[in-house]
Amino acid sequence: MSSILRGGRLAATRKEAVNFISSLHDDKRIAHATVLVNEAHVIALTKAKAISKSDARKLLRALRRLEDWVPLREGVEDIHVLIEEYVTKQVGRDVGGQLHLAKSRNDQVVTAVRMVLRDELLEVSNQLLSLENVLLRLASKHLESVFPGYTHLQPAQPISFAHYLLAVGDSFLRDNERILETHKRVNMSPMGAGALAGSSFNLDRALEAELLGFEGLIENTLDAVGSRDFALEALSAFSITASDLSRVAQDIIFFSSADVGILDIPDEFASTSSIMPQKKNPDPLEIIRARSAEVTSNFPAAATMLHGLPSGYNLDFQEITPLMWHSCDTLNSCLKILAQLISGLKLEKAIAERDYLQYIAATEIANILVREERIPFRTAHRAVGHSMRMALQQKKTLSELSPTDWERGLGMRVSKKMFASIAKTLDLRKHIEYYRVKGSPNPRQTEAMILSRTKRVQLLFEENVHAQAKLERSLTKLSSTGKKI
Amino acid sequence: MSSILRGGRLAATRKEAVNFISSLHDDKRIAHATVLVNEAHVIALTKAKAISKSDARKLLRALRRLEDWVPLREGVEDIHVLIEEYVTKQVGRDVGGQLHLAKSRNDQVVTAVRMVLRDELLEVSNQLLSLENVLLRLASKHLESVFPGYTHLQPAQPISFAHYLLAVGDSFLRDNERILETHKRVNMSPMGAGALAGSSFNLDRALEAELLGFEGLIENTLDAVGSRDFALEALSAFSITASDLSRVAQDIIFFSSADVGILDIPDEFASTSSIMPQKKNPDPLEIIRARSAEVTSNFPAAATMLHGLPSGYNLDFQEITPLMWHSCDTLNSCLKILAQLISGLKLEKAIAERDYLQYIAATEIANILVREERIPFRTAHRAVGHSMRMALQQKKTLSELSPTDWERGLGMRVSKKMFASIAKTLDLRKHIEYYRVKGSPNPRQTEAMILSRTKRVQLLFEENVHAQAKLERSLTKLSSTGKKI
Amino acid sequence: MSSILRGGRLAATRKEAVNFISSLHDDKRIAHATVLVNEAHVIALTKAKAISKSDARKLLRALRRLEDWVPLREGVEDIHVLIEEYVTKQVGRDVGGQLHLAKSRNDQVVTAVRMVLRDELLEVSNQLLSLENVLLRLASKHLESVFPGYTHLQPAQPISFAHYLLAVGDSFLRDNERILETHKRVNMSPMGAGALAGSSFNLDRALEAELLGFEGLIENTLDAVGSRDFALEALSAFSITASDLSRVAQDIIFFSSADVGILDIPDEFASTSSIMPQKKNPDPLEIIRARSAEVTSNFPAAATMLHGLPSGYNLDFQEITPLMWHSCDTLNSCLKILAQLISGLKLEKAIAERDYLQYIAATEIANILVREERIPFRTAHRAVGHSMRMALQQKKTLSELSPTDWERGLGMRVSKKMFASIAKTLDLRKHIEYYRVKGSPNPRQTEAMILSRTKRVQLLFEENVHAQAKLERSLTKLSSTGKKI
Amino acid sequence: MSSILRGGRLAATRKEAVNFISSLHDDKRIAHATVLVNEAHVIALTKAKAISKSDARKLLRALRRLEDWVPLREGVEDIHVLIEEYVTKQVGRDVGGQLHLAKSRNDQVVTAVRMVLRDELLEVSNQLLSLENVLLRLASKHLESVFPGYTHLQPAQPISFAHYLLAVGDSFLRDNERILETHKRVNMSPMGAGALAGSSFNLDRALEAELLGFEGLIENTLDAVGSRDFALEALSAFSITASDLSRVAQDIIFFSSADVGILDIPDEFASTSSIMPQKKNPDPLEIIRARSAEVTSNFPAAATMLHGLPSGYNLDFQEITPLMWHSCDTLNSCLKILAQLISGLKLEKAIAERDYLQYIAATEIANILVREERIPFRTAHRAVGHSMRMALQQKKTLSELSPTDWERGLGMRVSKKMFASIAKTLDLRKHIEYYRVKGSPNPRQTEAMILSRTKRVQLLFEENVHAQAKLERSLTKLSSTGKKI
Repeated sequence: MSSILRGGRLAATRKEAVNFISSLHDDKRIAHATVLVNEAHVIALTKAKAISKSDARKLLRALRRLEDWVPLREGVEDIHVLIEEYVTKQVGRDVGGQLHLAKSRNDQVVTAVRMVLRDELLEVSNQLLSLENVLLRLASKHLESVFPGYTHLQPAQPISFAHYLLAVGDSFLRDNERILETHKRVNMSPMGAGALAGSSFNLDRALEAELLGFEGLIENTLDAVGSRDFALEALSAFSITASDLSRVAQDIIFFSSADVGILDIPDEFASTSSIMPQKKNPDPLEIIRARSAEVTSNFPAAATMLHGLPSGYNLDFQEITPLMWHSCDTLNSCLKILAQLISGLKLEKAIAERDYLQYIAATEIANILVREERIPFRTAHRAVGHSMRMALQQKKTLSELSPTDWERGLGMRVSKKMFASIAKTLDLRKHIEYYRVKGSPNPRQTEAMILSRTKRVQLLFEENVHAQAKLERSLTKLSSTGKKI
Repeated sequence: MSSILRGGRLAATRKEAVNFISSLHDDKRIAHATVLVNEAHVIALTKAKAISKSDARKLLRALRRLEDWVPLREGVEDIHVLIEEYVTKQVGRDVGGQLHLAKSRNDQVVTAVRMVLRDELLEVSNQLLSLENVLLRLASKHLESVFPGYTHLQPAQPISFAHYLLAVGDSFLRDNERILETHKRVNMSPMGAGALAGSSFNLDRALEAELLGFEGLIENTLDAVGSRDFALEALSAFSITASDLSRVAQDIIFFSSADVGILDIPDEFASTSSIMPQKKNPDPLEIIRARSAEVTSNFPAAATMLHGLPSGYNLDFQEITPLMWHSCDTLNSCLKILAQLISGLKLEKAIAERDYLQYIAATEIANILVREERIPFRTAHRAVGHSMRMALQQKKTLSELSPTDWERGLGMRVSKKMFASIAKTLDLRKHIEYYRVKGSPNPRQTEAMILSRTKRVQLLFEENVHAQAKLERSLTKLSSTGKKI
Repeated sequence: MSSILRGGRLAATRKEAVNFISSLHDDKRIAHATVLVNEAHVIALTKAKAISKSDARKLLRALRRLEDWVPLREGVEDIHVLIEEYVTKQVGRDVGGQLHLAKSRNDQVVTAVRMVLRDELLEVSNQLLSLENVLLRLASKHLESVFPGYTHLQPAQPISFAHYLLAVGDSFLRDNERILETHKRVNMSPMGAGALAGSSFNLDRALEAELLGFEGLIENTLDAVGSRDFALEALSAFSITASDLSRVAQDIIFFSSADVGILDIPDEFASTSSIMPQKKNPDPLEIIRARSAEVTSNFPAAATMLHGLPSGYNLDFQEITPLMWHSCDTLNSCLKILAQLISGLKLEKAIAERDYLQYIAATEIANILVREERIPFRTAHRAVGHSMRMALQQKKTLSELSPTDWERGLGMRVSKKMFASIAKTLDLRKHIEYYRVKGSPNPRQTEAMILSRTKRVQLLFEENVHAQAKLERSLTKLSSTGKKI
Repeated sequence: MSSILRGGRLAATRKEAVNFISSLHDDKRIAHATVLVNEAHVIALTKAKAISKSDARKLLRALRRLEDWVPLREGVEDIHVLIEEYVTKQVGRDVGGQLHLAKSRNDQVVTAVRMVLRDELLEVSNQLLSLENVLLRLASKHLESVFPGYTHLQPAQPISFAHYLLAVGDSFLRDNERILETHKRVNMSPMGAGALAGSSFNLDRALEAELLGFEGLIENTLDAVGSRDFALEALSAFSITASDLSRVAQDIIFFSSADVGILDIPDEFASTSSIMPQKKNPDPLEIIRARSAEVTSNFPAAATMLHGLPSGYNLDFQEITPLMWHSCDTLNSCLKILAQLISGLKLEKAIAERDYLQYIAATEIANILVREERIPFRTAHRAVGHSMRMALQQKKTLSELSPTDWERGLGMRVSKKMFASIAKTLDLRKHIEYYRVKGSPNPRQTEAMILSRTKRVQLLFEENVHAQAKLERSLTKLSSTGKKI
């Protein structure tokens, strides 16, 4: 126990117990923010006439010296006590002893955590937008590149590589939305809530919030220190992003398997085996997949910690914070590597020529029967299905089927015109131009989607820059207000 | 396998396998929505001239007959096939065989799931608001009722019961925000995306979306059918709400324990023991606590299902849907019971008289030393802590301490005025009036909070009604458009 | 609240609250076991002279009538109260009122749950053994069938299909071990523990345990009713089995993808698409994969419920029980379907002829360099790796490489003998015979493994039959002891 | 990528990607074991005549130098490559290049992980046994100390503190059983399995297993490297232990709350508040509770990573290993602190005198009515329940009830003898002597339980020492065999 807490309520102290509960290692991350919170609090105390201007000046000067670096040392509970210790060492017990007036570690820690978390949320947002840019750039080169669309891990219908990339990108854009909505709720100030009940000093909580760059207050003081739904929310936003990441990683692992050979990952993002000389293993993608599971699991870990926890501050909260840092750090490193890897992906050229992929023209062949022969879709579906089964049994590709084969397979007359139409659908390059609905793989549709998303990403980047700038103005004001006292 | 899918690609079928994969039991929930989706699709097909108006009329008539009830029967994969079967039985194979033209179960099911989910989200929102109203009403009666505020499950500082209730309510209001933001993202239409690539018919996806009451499109067709981040988001919003529920349940269980005796729960929400005649057990609260864990666990269950799942539709998605229904049903029933139970809660009257609770005046005693004796807070904190330890050792209540006792405890002279000040803080009823900061338990602060939240809840209720009404107008338009063909 | 609990401690009752906490729906599963527990208890009460023989006879007769069927009815808390109600209706209040003497729902429910769970554990064991038998039978036909072994989803080294199947089977045998060890710890009797403290009647707990077929006692009475680690253990054993299931399902989905085409699943275990006529989707495998996630998630769900739960019985326990039934039912149905599906799997014949699979001979080529040319392995590894890269760039299969190509690739002289050795490894059928270590894909090794596992499975089946028979003898004794009173 | 893997299959390398996938940081933990695995492998290679004795001697000498310390350096994938690098640097490329012959990182890493894990399992077992000893010692001092037994967090029946402590201890003894059964399955050797298919060199896998101290083989080579059910099993055994820990922590937090005041935790295991001078917070217990949630969450994290993972080695496995270290380290530190804290717990003396606790005599009062007045239990239960309600309404303690009060409450005549019997049950000290069943709080029962468990713990400690000694003999043999070459 820090000496500043000794000699009061408790008779004894034990180093082992203090080290067991100490959060100091994780507190590095909030050290800077905690110093700023102390500064804002000193300003508010001064304004409330709870401390003298002269004391305030001394406290602020001491705090400013800690802005860049708070040296950690063992045997101390946390950064909050440590900062009070350092300040007291500088300014003496009489002045330093006022630093913790009308505040508690309970409000201070959650304020600092929210300050760091809001920055991290913006950083994840920026990484998501960078990845989206990579996807859009690659998509713009592959508007007409045939790509097999899958359902149930079976080739289903021809799409373009651009269309695939846009689908991936759209999920990341929704992830970004969730991240930013979380940011909005995180960026509210609990400061001034004290241990749980505010205080009898006339602290201006709105001023503290403003100087620390928050958009508003967590008003009820018990709620401010005793709730961690904001942490669950951040962890869930990170989790959903991770889930999307795991699916892209899995896709590329599958597409680049030697059996499938649709995508080729850059050599520098692969590893060979220490024993099997032919191997080109997609190691970074497997790591992304595995780490995404760690990120998604941080949510239930925190939810279990919070399960049935009594109201008010409980030290269990302390263990939730590092889960958030772990999640955002993991996400950021995965997003970075994935963006680099994707920008080097190569699409196998000859996909449209693969015999077994001709089968994915089947839906459109059924559509042709509907459009050109006025056959009900369900009948067409069955007839085409039957033809496929026949062709597979005869080990024929679809383009090897003669009109007679088709007649036998479909169980109907096949005109020359119809045979020609069928042949056309088998050319998968042309096939994707048949799609007509909004959002489909038709190159005109994908082009429009790329355009609109490129603009949107630009806008979102700008908003993040704006949010960051606004925050910096607040912190500048904090600094100048402190210096003016 | 339904007969309508037989005779095509696959040679054989097996009842056991069909029953194993069948989602029919869970599909009851989306039956009605699925019928509506079919109706909107028939209208779009007609507009696209893919089917004749006469066929459309027949299909729509048959569908309308299924609006109220789709009789389930065994041995069928899902509701989608079943509806096509029923329609075909009514209108014959030629017309019925067109029902599935240019659509897939993949887009149909996710559209129907989103339609039901958006309703459920509004329902959870309404339940949250109802509970908040109960909390606000109870709070308004207890502005000045002393209540021990806790940290670390130890009595910490005096607050009012109203302040406690407001803290609980504010967490539910944030839950409501998340629920509604999820609603916004859920209420987008994937319809028209087909299996994954849209179709070669000129379907107007925006029209389908409008007739089904959606606010916009999930544009990319692969994304529309192959993503389930919306399900994870809903599950996480439900989870966080459940986490908050578990904490309130735990609080009331603790407060109503015979050892604590701060709250008394209504007899009709308690159970006795089958063997111990004296018992009054808080059974419903334990069930709420336990079920909240089920709800929070549905998130990792779904995240695990989605972990590393390939792009496009996979049947694994089918198992995610019932997790959402389970979560919202559980939440709704818990929220309802909790609201009833809380509205019957009785606060033990004599709390402020309990000797051992006098200790929670300690912070304010230290504040008095700071304010009146100009002692640094940290010194005051230590002195008061030391006094507490002394009193406990002597098994004295604080009001039993004489001025001399205080002098010994605090290690300083204690003037008459100071002794009087200390005595005043020990009256916990007056104590809560000393709090000055925004959001604190001061009755004026809690009164203002009750007022603002009451207004806000009213507004939120109205917005939900408005959203519901807008949706109904869309569905009315769907119906009338169908009838006009 | 059941009428038998009314009129005592609590003044009021509310149907809504009773229905909310009622476990009756889930209690169906333990109804029979609960009747037996009551019978054993009546016998013990008689032996302890707590009730008269005449009363005992009446109670036992009434209980026996409920053995086959306990009709459920609404508005009752649970099966325990319901059985007491039915018995009381039959024998009158004076006799029926003795049924609950010296017992509690707390000990009764956990005894019944353990009784059902031990049966379920044996059933899962039997299903696992049946699946293992299917794997062994299939393996015995494929000792020499070449199969690509994978690491990182990349073809790695040639193995046999039998070797693959044995690997799968061995994981299920370990699952079986865990299931049976759990069975051992589950099959201990908590009966007689009362609410938490046993009772002042001289109940013979060992007799109760024996009559109910248990192997011993959970001795400490508080532990007996207040612990649920046995439930967590069962859920974890189920989870690990589910995890293994998900991996097999994933493998077969991948191996049967059109791009890979190594395995063909039976038509009756596939589904086609409602829109894409060519599709053959591995639906049951996707359902197995998804449901395995539900099973693994039941563990954290229960762990969250138990997190920080106070000692003694809490109603939260009630929600853990259905998680166990859900897990074992899901597992059993998945294991059954998987066994059927696997027994119909067809291995694609021409695997050894696939050009791109020649690359998996690479490790052995490096080994040849080591053995025949005395080159250090790491040098050989690099040289072979370089050759592979060259061949891929030239789009050549390995058998197309000339001696000169090899010389250039390996960077060394290639003798005729060496060229011949290399050529031999490229014949994957012969390749698998080179393996020499224990447990390798060498057909002699796999044959020995099949033999030993076949014997072991036979033995394990017999042990399960034996355990079942022993249990039935106990229950017969319970019945005859009851009739003799 | 380490230089030893360059120049082969892959053209390019990228530091960022290597650092991203590197496991080096976590590999510190398995460094020593990995060196030993290499030594055993060199011996087996020598015996198989795959390498010369002279080379073997050089390799072993180089490896022995790394036994104590493998200096880590950046930019390397893992410890395996690093060790090969260091050895090669010492003995040159010709000899060093043979180190990786006939082995793979796949079998090497899982062998080393199992070696470290088996030690950790024994360590957790020892910690559990130490804690059990603390519980038994404390229990032996409190055979007759009255303690309220709880159900539903409501005082239920009187037990002794010893009985409570024994219940806690028995759950830890079952945890220990699971830990040791896991140890048995973990302590099997996968070594010699190579990448997945063993090798064409005649390696003696049984010898490798024996030299490394394993009890047997994971026979099938694909299974040996491609399965991680052992990790899930270890994580689940750790999780269940953690769940039990969280419940004890919660109990002591509750029992030491100022409102409850049944237990007093030692000052050195409490913290005060930085603002509230009276606070004595149970910080270490809250940290134990929170960290137990981290441990239980490591199981679903790993299960999610394994969900649907293809057979064979995948790099995802790498992320599972640190979860195990995290779990066992967390457990060990929590078990240690808890043992210290519990050994300093003080039981509040006056428990039996608390008025409100008299109510927990109710069950026995009903039993008296049954025994002495021949009233059916259910009738007695209702009558006593009604008396309790009456007493509570009149705010009377039970000993304040006059015979007339009892007559009114019970609705029956109350004889002098009966009144005396009731009065006796209200003396909770005597009350616990009435219990008669095995495992109950009767002091003779608890004394017997303490005795049997004390012996058992002694035996279990000895078995762990024995297992450790056996292992050390194997490693000594490994060393001497190596030196004899």
